[in-house]
Amino acid sequence: MLDVTLLGTGGMMPLPNRHLTSLLVRLDGSSLLIDCGEGTQIALAKANLSPNPIDIILITHFHADHISGLIGLLLSMGNSDRREKITIVGPKDIEKVVSSLRIIAPQLPFKIEYIELKNEKGILNIGKYNIEYFKLKHKITCYGYSILVPRLPEFQLEKAKENNIPLKYWNKLQHGEIIYDKENEKTYKPSDVMGEEREGLKLTYLTDTRPVKIIEEMAKNANLFICEGMYGESDKDDNAKEYMHMTMKEAIKIGVKINPKEMWLTHYSPSEMKPQKYLEEFRRTLPQLFIPKDGWHKELKFED
Amino acid sequence: MLDVTLLGTGGMMPLPNRHLTSLLVRLDGSSLLIDCGEGTQIALAKANLSPNPIDIILITHFHADHISGLIGLLLSMGNSDRREKITIVGPKDIEKVVSSLRIIAPQLPFKIEYIELKNEKGILNIGKYNIEYFKLKHKITCYGYSILVPRLPEFQLEKAKENNIPLKYWNKLQHGEIIYDKENEKTYKPSDVMGEEREGLKLTYLTDTRPVKIIEEMAKNANLFICEGMYGESDKDDNAKEYMHMTMKEAIKIGVKINPKEMWLTHYSPSEMKPQKYLEEFRRTLPQLFIPKDGWHKELKFED
Repeated sequence: MLDVTLLGTGGMMPLPNRHLTSLLVRLDGSSLLIDCGEGTQIALAKANLSPNPIDIILITHFHADHISGLIGLLLSMGNSDRREKITIVGPKDIEKVVSSLRIIAPQLPFKIEYIELKNEKGILNIGKYNIEYFKLKHKITCYGYSILVPRLPEFQLEKAKENNIPLKYWNKLQHGEIIYDKENEKTYKPSDVMGEEREGLKLTYLTDTRPVKIIEEMAKNANLFICEGMYGESDKDDNAKEYMHMTMKEAIKIGVKINPKEMWLTHYSPSEMKPQKYLEEFRRTLPQLFIPKDGWHKELKFED
Repeated sequence: MLDVTLLGTGGMMPLPNRHLTSLLVRLDGSSLLIDCGEGTQIALAKANLSPNPIDIILITHFHADHISGLIGLLLSMGNSDRREKITIVGPKDIEKVVSSLRIIAPQLPFKIEYIELKNEKGILNIGKYNIEYFKLKHKITCYGYSILVPRLPEFQLEKAKENNIPLKYWNKLQHGEIIYDKENEKTYKPSDVMGEEREGLKLTYLTDTRPVKIIEEMAKNANLFICEGMYGESDKDDNAKEYMHMTMKEAIKIGVKINPKEMWLTHYSPSEMKPQKYLEEFRRTLPQLFIPKDGWHKELKFED
């Protein structure tokens, strides 16, 4: 199960009732954070979530509204007794940028491992997380991310019995091991006890980009697609182009093409005082759309 | 008139209902900010105050809870059309520290002038502000500040007439000029038209320090004395000593000695969930004491 909380929904600057866009994902007792603008640690506390279990922080890009809360968060993690290493992933120079910000937090009680992204797209396997990253189109280098949770095929008792697989190997085979049995000179494969491939979970998150082709490819088959929708008003198309952001309409156009199970907009302009007012109109085109407020939450579960 | 707003009252880390300690002072259309931890710009917006008129930012020291919101604030000042130069004052290396943090905000639409404090104490005259600074005793170099608004003596019509001061000089003399009249070969002084010296306004602000002697000297005769009171619980005395902070009791002891017109505590530990619960007890010792919440506001006016 992937537990997803959209901590904030704002772009550019925090507002009294709207924190900057960031996402917390929880998986088996571990947390992963995407982006950390000023106030993210407050949004986390408001959602009754501890900063302590955050093992991975993914930064999309180095504009302040996506990273200016990082130092406060790291310090609060230290104060909440975090001692285990954390991994920070981001565009080229992520280590240089975080180190420069750490002039006001030179000492932390845990290690930081950095992963600098350089390719157009790729896959990272960090701990229990499978993370796809892909380059977007913004004023500066910016990445989108998908979190994938693969699902093992089902164990089939009948199949194991039919294939005469010794009981002692069932558990290992279920967990993907291939076993050679010397005594019988036989090789056993996971497929000897397991059923068909099963669909896993996919969460795709992206902000601060023009609507480029790679998004459709990378967000395909998402259970939840969280996408920038900076402006709802139609007279802001030029702003979106000039500052390289995406309007709600542009985001929804992508949503219609890839047809995710559910879609959330985020990263609203401070000029959009009530982004939810567009929901009814846009749902006529994309019924699975939401225009969340801060703290929006969902558990993504395997389908049965 | 000095308009004073205590934007936040928290120490160490921001809480959902408590921003980090910072103070906004307004004087004749200009604002001065003391400290800027994470979320200060949100606290400012909550108090319905614009970041645009901030001409001076005083930083007490470089612990993150006092400066981590600076970059977000500077960016929001730019977004609110600030174009005039601002002055940032702080301990040695203030320019180096702010420049390092500006890795995520390299371009701002206004100039920053830095003033690095090096002495134990001193006076700065910046624009319309008279600022006294004085070194405190914390884990790292930390300064306290007083804002002084001098009051001109009263213009006395009768005195001007009695002294036969020509009408054309009255205005200049009122504003402190000394005038030599060639025709009459006479020198006119401000005291020829003005009454007695009058008491001005004094606001003293300090956090993150042990209770050292210099505080009594520098906060003497304050109209408003805002002072750290990190812990109310009596079992936190050792914490205060170890991390070089001040307990509420220690702060009040200073308050009793200098007897300011009004005293506010601030910079509460996150462990103090309801600092106001100590008010009744402490007011028995110091009746002019307040234990403010975020957004506490007062107008300091000349006495009549």
